[in-house]
Amino acid sequence: MNISALQKERAKYQPKVPKSLTGAVKLVEGAKTESVADQAEIAKLFPNTYGMPLISFEAGEVKKDRQPLNVGVILSGGQAPGGHNVISGIFDGIKKLNPESKLYGFLGGPGGLVDHKYIELTADIIDDYRNTGGFDIIGSGRTKLEEDWQYDKGLEIAKDLDLNSLVIIGGDDSNTNACVLAEYYAAKGEKLQVIGCPKTIDGDLKNEMIETSFGFDTATKVYSELIGNIQRDANSAKKYWHFIKLMGRSASHIGLECALKTQPNITLISEEVEEKQQTLDEVVTYMAEIVAKRAENGDNFGVALIPEGLIEFIPEMKILISELNDLLAEGTDSEKEFKHLKKSHRVEWVSEHITPDSAKVLLSLPTGIANQLMLDRDPHGNVQVSLIETEKLLGEMVDTKLAEMKEAGQYVGKFGTQYHFFGYEGRCAAPSNFDADYCYSLGYTASVLISDGLTGYMASVRNTTAPADDWIAGGVPVTMMMNMEKRHGHMKPVIQKALVELDGAPYKYFKSKRGEWAYNTCFIYPGPIQYFGPTEVCDVTTETLKLEQAK
Amino acid sequence: MNISALQKERAKYQPKVPKSLTGAVKLVEGAKTESVADQAEIAKLFPNTYGMPLISFEAGEVKKDRQPLNVGVILSGGQAPGGHNVISGIFDGIKKLNPESKLYGFLGGPGGLVDHKYIELTADIIDDYRNTGGFDIIGSGRTKLEEDWQYDKGLEIAKDLDLNSLVIIGGDDSNTNACVLAEYYAAKGEKLQVIGCPKTIDGDLKNEMIETSFGFDTATKVYSELIGNIQRDANSAKKYWHFIKLMGRSASHIGLECALKTQPNITLISEEVEEKQQTLDEVVTYMAEIVAKRAENGDNFGVALIPEGLIEFIPEMKILISELNDLLAEGTDSEKEFKHLKKSHRVEWVSEHITPDSAKVLLSLPTGIANQLMLDRDPHGNVQVSLIETEKLLGEMVDTKLAEMKEAGQYVGKFGTQYHFFGYEGRCAAPSNFDADYCYSLGYTASVLISDGLTGYMASVRNTTAPADDWIAGGVPVTMMMNMEKRHGHMKPVIQKALVELDGAPYKYFKSKRGEWAYNTCFIYPGPIQYFGPTEVCDVTTETLKLEQAK
Repeated sequence: MNISALQKERAKYQPKVPKSLTGAVKLVEGAKTESVADQAEIAKLFPNTYGMPLISFEAGEVKKDRQPLNVGVILSGGQAPGGHNVISGIFDGIKKLNPESKLYGFLGGPGGLVDHKYIELTADIIDDYRNTGGFDIIGSGRTKLEEDWQYDKGLEIAKDLDLNSLVIIGGDDSNTNACVLAEYYAAKGEKLQVIGCPKTIDGDLKNEMIETSFGFDTATKVYSELIGNIQRDANSAKKYWHFIKLMGRSASHIGLECALKTQPNITLISEEVEEKQQTLDEVVTYMAEIVAKRAENGDNFGVALIPEGLIEFIPEMKILISELNDLLAEGTDSEKEFKHLKKSHRVEWVSEHITPDSAKVLLSLPTGIANQLMLDRDPHGNVQVSLIETEKLLGEMVDTKLAEMKEAGQYVGKFGTQYHFFGYEGRCAAPSNFDADYCYSLGYTASVLISDGLTGYMASVRNTTAPADDWIAGGVPVTMMMNMEKRHGHMKPVIQKALVELDGAPYKYFKSKRGEWAYNTCFIYPGPIQYFGPTEVCDVTTETLKLEQAK
Repeated sequence: MNISALQKERAKYQPKVPKSLTGAVKLVEGAKTESVADQAEIAKLFPNTYGMPLISFEAGEVKKDRQPLNVGVILSGGQAPGGHNVISGIFDGIKKLNPESKLYGFLGGPGGLVDHKYIELTADIIDDYRNTGGFDIIGSGRTKLEEDWQYDKGLEIAKDLDLNSLVIIGGDDSNTNACVLAEYYAAKGEKLQVIGCPKTIDGDLKNEMIETSFGFDTATKVYSELIGNIQRDANSAKKYWHFIKLMGRSASHIGLECALKTQPNITLISEEVEEKQQTLDEVVTYMAEIVAKRAENGDNFGVALIPEGLIEFIPEMKILISELNDLLAEGTDSEKEFKHLKKSHRVEWVSEHITPDSAKVLLSLPTGIANQLMLDRDPHGNVQVSLIETEKLLGEMVDTKLAEMKEAGQYVGKFGTQYHFFGYEGRCAAPSNFDADYCYSLGYTASVLISDGLTGYMASVRNTTAPADDWIAGGVPVTMMMNMEKRHGHMKPVIQKALVELDGAPYKYFKSKRGEWAYNTCFIYPGPIQYFGPTEVCDVTTETLKLEQAK
């Protein structure tokens, strides 16, 4: 295999782990837990895995003659930097316990479990993937484990392979499903344990016991490197506004973290837009006013960060999209009528068939975007929100707004734009030291939880702004993070998604500074992730964690 | 100033320089030079600066009582990583000679010289910019120095500031103009010297004596980091073809270098397309066949690199664009008629008013692109080639081609695309160790050339794949790189632009490998630029240079 010079060096890196994981580990039971809400319903749904205690690790005595463990690991959902290190952490953990232990990887995500597609992960395979990015060691997938027949198929292969445990590495949904699976096997009296690991670059799987999901650190560092480079360009060339969309549909943690790292002129936070019930016009006006104010100082350039999911947080857009979904639903009479219209008559016709408020919003959109809303529909006839080029929508509307302001004598300047979308650039980056260490520790922690016979737990590593030595490893019952939410019309137990908290320290700090960042040029240029230099450059994690833990 | 942890550490970096620059320097005259072509004409145009000898540096005796030097520096054209280090190299060089020396920076590019806008660059300013990216220390600009009145305005301020020399940091055009300026002042008997420095991320300013232009190393490293990350994602998710457009209008050095570093499935080289006189359909077919072949192995994913300037290298597109420019030229009767047409009739009308061959090409284009060609025109009525989204054009056409192939039973697979354009992400990155060292050495070299009274020279640092110690510093007469070319209808002396040579070692290596890279998955993941690690990770320059110098 032809690998890069950096990858060669990086293969030698031994991730740092909490002191408690360096020798024999003793499990200490903490307080019994309760779910964050809807305790009675969740207790009822999870009779075998509800109310279990928190677990923390301490140095213990070496136990001899530990039985070998057989573990199956699954990567679920979108890629995040560090997945390979979770797997190598599990591998090293179970091998240390007993060299006869075996690790199997299910291929292509949860579907591999159901379809019985797997490989044994041996030392030479693992060694090729230590400290690398990507999920390519076994692949990932989006099959949801939600039905009994899937659980039974899983049990079948688990018995064939004599597995003690499954480790499911995924986001909030996958970890919810991991817990349902754990409960299902426990209820059946099966020995098969299920352990979850918190993954997602979006950063929206976190709570009191899970400080951060892995991958968030690395992905935001990659995006911030690029944002910083673009800011330096904006400040050198002084001729463009760069509108940068950042991956992440539901939460704006990525945008917020990148803003804290780079101090751009504008950062939109979806949660704030929703909280304030802002209209599209209000968002556009906010941006245009900053552009105009900077132009007064002769600064016809800047950088704006835009969360990918913004559109769905603007109440009037949400309503418009929902009305369009109803009006143009596959097979309806209205859809048939719409299809026979001339292109040029479509906007008018649609605006007459939705509420006046939504019609007003539709007519305010640039033609291209309005057409996209009406035409680019998924097989169910729904608007494909992920295809909407929000950065261009805002750019065009700011341009129009500025033209009005110019007319009214409120703006004198030039407005040129460049658009960017960063997502795939960071999801599979090689993990930062932090993510390499954190992931490896999570994997190793999972192996300890397994060896102690636990199920329905998520691996947890806390105190993550301290040096790795002082990190606190342990396990958290997944039911502790759950509440009841409506999904597809039914109430379901799910892990609460962590959106940006508007009374949280990171947002509050951002809010206190953004005025200054908007009008002055306070850009910070973080540069690329470093692996070998001084610790303050190489081993520091996110601003979000720093601010949250400084509380 | 709030700066990043990396920037703080990086400020301490002392760039490596050739041994000959570490002590007192002796200038050694080499052979007299001749221009690469059109010797008689160029000799006639540059009577004072033609035929000068090559200059190389050796360790010499320290000369005492050197007079202070006053130097003015100009950044010209697009940003490139390392510009600030050229300036700090000049600064340190002239200060070492005599601490009374002064460095002035003209603001906003060559226009600053003409408009007499400048600042003195003092030690504390310089120190803030050492080893940083961007051109923001004094800004850059695209004003061309081509007329006598500009030269005279320059002379005026040079006299006011008692300047010995101007250093112009720029690409091929800017260095051509630097030489014209040198000749102009020399012909007038003025003492004002002019020295050039080779800058451009595009890598198209190079020749026998100038091995590489600065910034190319860093920019291609940043792009390759991102391409590698995307490749890892493609190989993990296995669901998308990523079409990545790379900055650079005229040459494909960037794409070629990135391909050598990352081994993607497809890399288009403009120079090859032109040499083979390929049609758009041939390019699309080439790509579609690779997609189809990979799909046979179940690999419905891949990465394709596309040079920004490709369109202009496809002969039939060049002709179409030129015919459109004529047909729709501002104020012509045909343009007036066109303007009054209904949108839906435009393509048809245009296709009837251009040659049948061009009409065929126009009609083969996706509607959006055809409209863009007809409608997005600059103030002179010309097609704005830089606005054409070549990556999407090719993506859509490959999609159409694959649909035909599917119909014909030649393709079974899925084709999903993601598009990227990398340019601004790399132009202002902080320089790699190589560019930090190379740029500083170029600046220092310029100061030595100035101290010896030379003019019309470009600073040159060669043997760049060896350790910096062994680099060969010196000066090359700019006239040596010139030939006569037609510009705006007139023959002019210009520095020959270096396109990708199809019989050069880098292209030949690429060509010998690309079949394997296309069908197999041979991705390399270079990772981010490292500053502090092992030398084989941190100090190695481009694959292009490695292959060229291995000759």
